[in-house]
Amino acid sequence: MTLFTLEEYKARIHAVKKRMEASEIEVLVASDPANMNYLTGYDGWSFYVPQCVVLAADSEEPVWIGRKMDANGARLTTWLAEENILGYPEDYVQSPVKHPMNVAGEEIQRRGWAGRTVGVEMDAYYFTARSLAELKKSLPEARFANADLLVNWVRLVKSDAEIALMKEAGKIAERVMQTAIDRLEPGVRECDAVADVYRAQMSGTPQFGGDYPSIVPMMPTGEKTSAPHLTWTDAPYENEQMVNLELAACRHRYHCPIARTAYLGKQPPDKLVSLAEHTVEGLNLTLDAIKPEMRCEEVEQVWREHIAKAGLTKESRIGYALGLNYPPDWGEHTASLRPGDKTVLAPNMTFHMILGMWMDEYGFECSESFRVTEAGCETFADFPRKLFVK
Amino acid sequence: MTLFTLEEYKARIHAVKKRMEASEIEVLVASDPANMNYLTGYDGWSFYVPQCVVLAADSEEPVWIGRKMDANGARLTTWLAEENILGYPEDYVQSPVKHPMNVAGEEIQRRGWAGRTVGVEMDAYYFTARSLAELKKSLPEARFANADLLVNWVRLVKSDAEIALMKEAGKIAERVMQTAIDRLEPGVRECDAVADVYRAQMSGTPQFGGDYPSIVPMMPTGEKTSAPHLTWTDAPYENEQMVNLELAACRHRYHCPIARTAYLGKQPPDKLVSLAEHTVEGLNLTLDAIKPEMRCEEVEQVWREHIAKAGLTKESRIGYALGLNYPPDWGEHTASLRPGDKTVLAPNMTFHMILGMWMDEYGFECSESFRVTEAGCETFADFPRKLFVK
Repeated sequence: MTLFTLEEYKARIHAVKKRMEASEIEVLVASDPANMNYLTGYDGWSFYVPQCVVLAADSEEPVWIGRKMDANGARLTTWLAEENILGYPEDYVQSPVKHPMNVAGEEIQRRGWAGRTVGVEMDAYYFTARSLAELKKSLPEARFANADLLVNWVRLVKSDAEIALMKEAGKIAERVMQTAIDRLEPGVRECDAVADVYRAQMSGTPQFGGDYPSIVPMMPTGEKTSAPHLTWTDAPYENEQMVNLELAACRHRYHCPIARTAYLGKQPPDKLVSLAEHTVEGLNLTLDAIKPEMRCEEVEQVWREHIAKAGLTKESRIGYALGLNYPPDWGEHTASLRPGDKTVLAPNMTFHMILGMWMDEYGFECSESFRVTEAGCETFADFPRKLFVK
Repeated sequence: MTLFTLEEYKARIHAVKKRMEASEIEVLVASDPANMNYLTGYDGWSFYVPQCVVLAADSEEPVWIGRKMDANGARLTTWLAEENILGYPEDYVQSPVKHPMNVAGEEIQRRGWAGRTVGVEMDAYYFTARSLAELKKSLPEARFANADLLVNWVRLVKSDAEIALMKEAGKIAERVMQTAIDRLEPGVRECDAVADVYRAQMSGTPQFGGDYPSIVPMMPTGEKTSAPHLTWTDAPYENEQMVNLELAACRHRYHCPIARTAYLGKQPPDKLVSLAEHTVEGLNLTLDAIKPEMRCEEVEQVWREHIAKAGLTKESRIGYALGLNYPPDWGEHTASLRPGDKTVLAPNMTFHMILGMWMDEYGFECSESFRVTEAGCETFADFPRKLFVK
């Protein structure tokens, strides 16, 4: 049974075909697991072997190509007819002489599409350099074109059904953040606090459970706050320290990230309190300014002008499109809230706005995941925006 | 501070250089996060942006190249000198016109290595088709060679310090499996059972905490047992059902997977009980047969001959090398316990032997992670091998 209606999948296929036509791509080979899911419903932890969905401009349905043992998973989660589910045998797995992309190439041959322009996702995580080389070897007559982010740009505007899942993820995200803040105490091992965060992520709410987010919980403290992607240790949290909480919840692969900062100790430094106030004010103000028809760069400008008044600057982007995804990232790699991004906001576009301000020895971050509405924007989680002092 | 001694990293570099020489590779560009970690100690969730370690045959140290915001993480986790840690600026992140592999290429130019033979990991997960194209663009004079699995083959034999971490992972794995079995009850939602498994994975033991395993917990039941890589749902476990438990623990990125099967209900079907007996007997017998100097295919043969007596066959491989890894897989993609694999076992090679027997409507699986010893083999976890009936 698929997660969305057949009409919804057909609308996605239609929108992707329009972009294929504009890019003169006749056959799309999508290997990004999020794009495979978006087009077919397929959802499984099988992206550690090469797999793809092949969509021809003149075919109604895409073809799922994956490992034979995963074909049953495709039967259970996709809307595809049996003839469009193709499993490759075990001897293609981790072989130096055979490769699953040869199977994809041969299937494209078999269907008479070998002389066409084939679009491939050049920078998608699981489409390796060898994947392309093997696909080319099996399709010597095809022309190859870059279809990177082609499906991702269609994913930018969500359907109401997708928004409903992101709202559910938002409800779980509130519990996840509350769990982290409740659990943080001097003396508690980082791994134990993270353990409870994981439990909250998967348990979800009494009404609906959670799914694994595409990025692990980040809860750095001490010197590790300057190294944002190091994960936890066995060390206990200490008093008089800041902890950055970059967390998320996920529902059927749809994400709601949320970030906050906590301070362990009675009296946070004045400069931290002041930074938190400026940042939260800027977040509120920037969210309030959002409207359809605004450009992404204009959103960033609101923030930049606000913090400039406090003598602050921020180098990196302040947000990015997100939604359906798989590890190692929940971002969609399309629109960003940053200077130069001319993307025009429209209702049901969804973003994660994350304002992280890093000084030499301290810092503060606060984020919200939201959708653009007809009149402004709406966040998925409802959680206090402030420095948490424990 | 690095996890291993400087001598250990130097020994790894030496072994990798020997293989580079044999393959006539003068400059190795390793993008596999496990290989980056193996050579330098680098450990962070930053593989969602392109990054690599560059090792020249005539240089003492490799060069770490990653995002500027992750360079601090490299300073904190690697043994490299400051001159060998290179962060690229934010405008290289998710840009259609610039790519981090251009930075890698330019650094190789700058160091005078541009005319050499450059080895790249053609099928490594995060080395995309575009990564190769951009690296080639920035290194027009270089010859390119396939260095796929070059470092992985060095990783096959573990040091005693690596084994110590896998033993710690084994201790956590016992707790993880016990948690799953304790938590399984008719009426318990799958997501809640998974939530407790996650908690056990990260909490570890009172002496040491856990790390995130490279694959999510798999606990399918009902029709989903035929689709091994579908993840959990909100549905409650039901009575009179089998549950497959494919779990793992991780310690500083070193894994100990463990699989068992549970039956919810007083009276498991006779055929399941009988299958479990044959499988466990085969597992015991095969583990007992393992000795250094044996070939991988000979290990599989012991198993195959045993189950043939019960009229059973198994199509896929029965095990694979594993250890240090990152999502989406903990396997090393080198030696497999399967027909045709001539790899000769040696002390401190580590494998996951997983015996999954799937009939039409039922199945049983049981696994052990182990190291080859001087005289035989030794498992990392100590957990009863049987069908668990609840």
